[in-house]
Amino acid sequence: MKIVVVGLGLIGGSFALSLRSVYKTAEIFGIDNTQENLSKALSLGLIDEEANYPELYDANIVIVAVPVNASIELLPKILQTVGDDTLVFDVGSSKQLICDTLESHPKRRNFLAAHPIAGTEFSGPEAAIKDLFYNKTMIVCEVEKTAYKLQQTGLLLFEDLGMNLRFMCPKVHDKHIAYVSHLSHISSFMLGKTVIEKEKMERDIFDMAGSGFESTVRLAKSSASMWTPIFEQNRNNVAEVLEEYICNLQAFKKLIDNGDFDKVYEQITETNRIREVLTDSRTVPLRLNGKNGEHSRVKKAVM
Amino acid sequence: MKIVVVGLGLIGGSFALSLRSVYKTAEIFGIDNTQENLSKALSLGLIDEEANYPELYDANIVIVAVPVNASIELLPKILQTVGDDTLVFDVGSSKQLICDTLESHPKRRNFLAAHPIAGTEFSGPEAAIKDLFYNKTMIVCEVEKTAYKLQQTGLLLFEDLGMNLRFMCPKVHDKHIAYVSHLSHISSFMLGKTVIEKEKMERDIFDMAGSGFESTVRLAKSSASMWTPIFEQNRNNVAEVLEEYICNLQAFKKLIDNGDFDKVYEQITETNRIREVLTDSRTVPLRLNGKNGEHSRVKKAVM
Repeated sequence: MKIVVVGLGLIGGSFALSLRSVYKTAEIFGIDNTQENLSKALSLGLIDEEANYPELYDANIVIVAVPVNASIELLPKILQTVGDDTLVFDVGSSKQLICDTLESHPKRRNFLAAHPIAGTEFSGPEAAIKDLFYNKTMIVCEVEKTAYKLQQTGLLLFEDLGMNLRFMCPKVHDKHIAYVSHLSHISSFMLGKTVIEKEKMERDIFDMAGSGFESTVRLAKSSASMWTPIFEQNRNNVAEVLEEYICNLQAFKKLIDNGDFDKVYEQITETNRIREVLTDSRTVPLRLNGKNGEHSRVKKAVM
Repeated sequence: MKIVVVGLGLIGGSFALSLRSVYKTAEIFGIDNTQENLSKALSLGLIDEEANYPELYDANIVIVAVPVNASIELLPKILQTVGDDTLVFDVGSSKQLICDTLESHPKRRNFLAAHPIAGTEFSGPEAAIKDLFYNKTMIVCEVEKTAYKLQQTGLLLFEDLGMNLRFMCPKVHDKHIAYVSHLSHISSFMLGKTVIEKEKMERDIFDMAGSGFESTVRLAKSSASMWTPIFEQNRNNVAEVLEEYICNLQAFKKLIDNGDFDKVYEQITETNRIREVLTDSRTVPLRLNGKNGEHSRVKKAVM
């Protein structure tokens, strides 16, 4: 099996690593727009060899793991290059624009729109993690627009990595993900900004940063090249949830200003419900082929 | 040595656990306003015995680890009860009001105002962790108002737990901690609230909650009984930093609304500086007695 990973950062590198451990005989090729990433990916053993775009023709699987603005440019060209039996999937955090862009592409049926709900605040090939996708959710959009055989290839690959599948339309995906991912990032970026602005004047502040601050501000370390185009492509949803967040913060501040601490207590108690909600959300994974552990059987069927 | 812990939650319980491992021969007593916590603390081995307030008289050390509103009520009474050689320290996250409250107390010299920058989002005796304070910062306010001998007892105890000391006036403490701790909590509570409100209508949302959301919303699990009085006591500083945070969010939203994604990129890149800042802040701990590992020597000197 020939797999080509386009974009050898955290996500692309993690796909390379994890697929290598599941598909032992696969040859994994890499493409990146910087020689530095390519060299790192080779020396870290993420990929076997460098590839060029024309070589995508006979690939079985092409994984496009580049920032979402680059995806919009690259994917139409990549689809033009690949053979009829090649599956191409992306991993971007905004899905509407890419699905719209490829809607009428002659090779639309070779494409699967995917979004793994997995990541860290780090980037580059050295940030790749072998088990990044294990037991994580993979959202797949417009699955019915992908050729049946290639749907199979893609979905079984995700299951072979131990992922839980969710099917969703791009519009609903983009709306939901604005809440649970994009808003978290903005909240964290702006928290970092607010504290850093203060720190210019008062250096001591960071000696006091406890673990609470570190976890809320963790996402503020995330890459600007990755996140700016996500916010751009999902701007309407992002603006809407950001507005709701700001309104909640303003209302909370008003409670403090008015000394209404009974209401403050009430709001915090209600929000504590997040404990149960987050626990619940992890309990019922949907798997096409039942449980994990059937990897080798599934793999053979796909190859 | 007789140690009494008043308030057997996460912080009090963790002091009991960690002091037991450092001061092997100490007797550790507990006081709590619920029988449930007392029973748990006994069965978990956090404390040796239940105590009552009159028994504080001959304690060597009394640790008051209750919500900051309860501290304001309890500490004056506790100080009245204790003997001349007893050190009493609190652990609250707001320091100005407690320092003001005890300013003219006849036993002011028995009190040390302390704030360990350590914690988790969990509460109760079962949340206690033995190493919670190791390599964490302990902020001490108005140290000069504590009797010299009791300063020694307290500061060496903190060092015996492996903590790094910082001395600060209550006013500066409350201002800084509003940025690095209180704001993080509000940002997280309101993020949880915003997403939960949405979830009422659309259940799917939590299947999509990746690790990014979980870390930013972690603090939203924190106890309302603990945090409401902190926000109340530090309301002026909290309102001020919250205002700055809201302004930053509004400005960011405006950039998105106006499609000014170059500026979005710029702001994220600047905020990425948090990576270095957070790393730097952990490198130069101040220790009265040099490095950790001298525990037994220090301990003998104190006993």
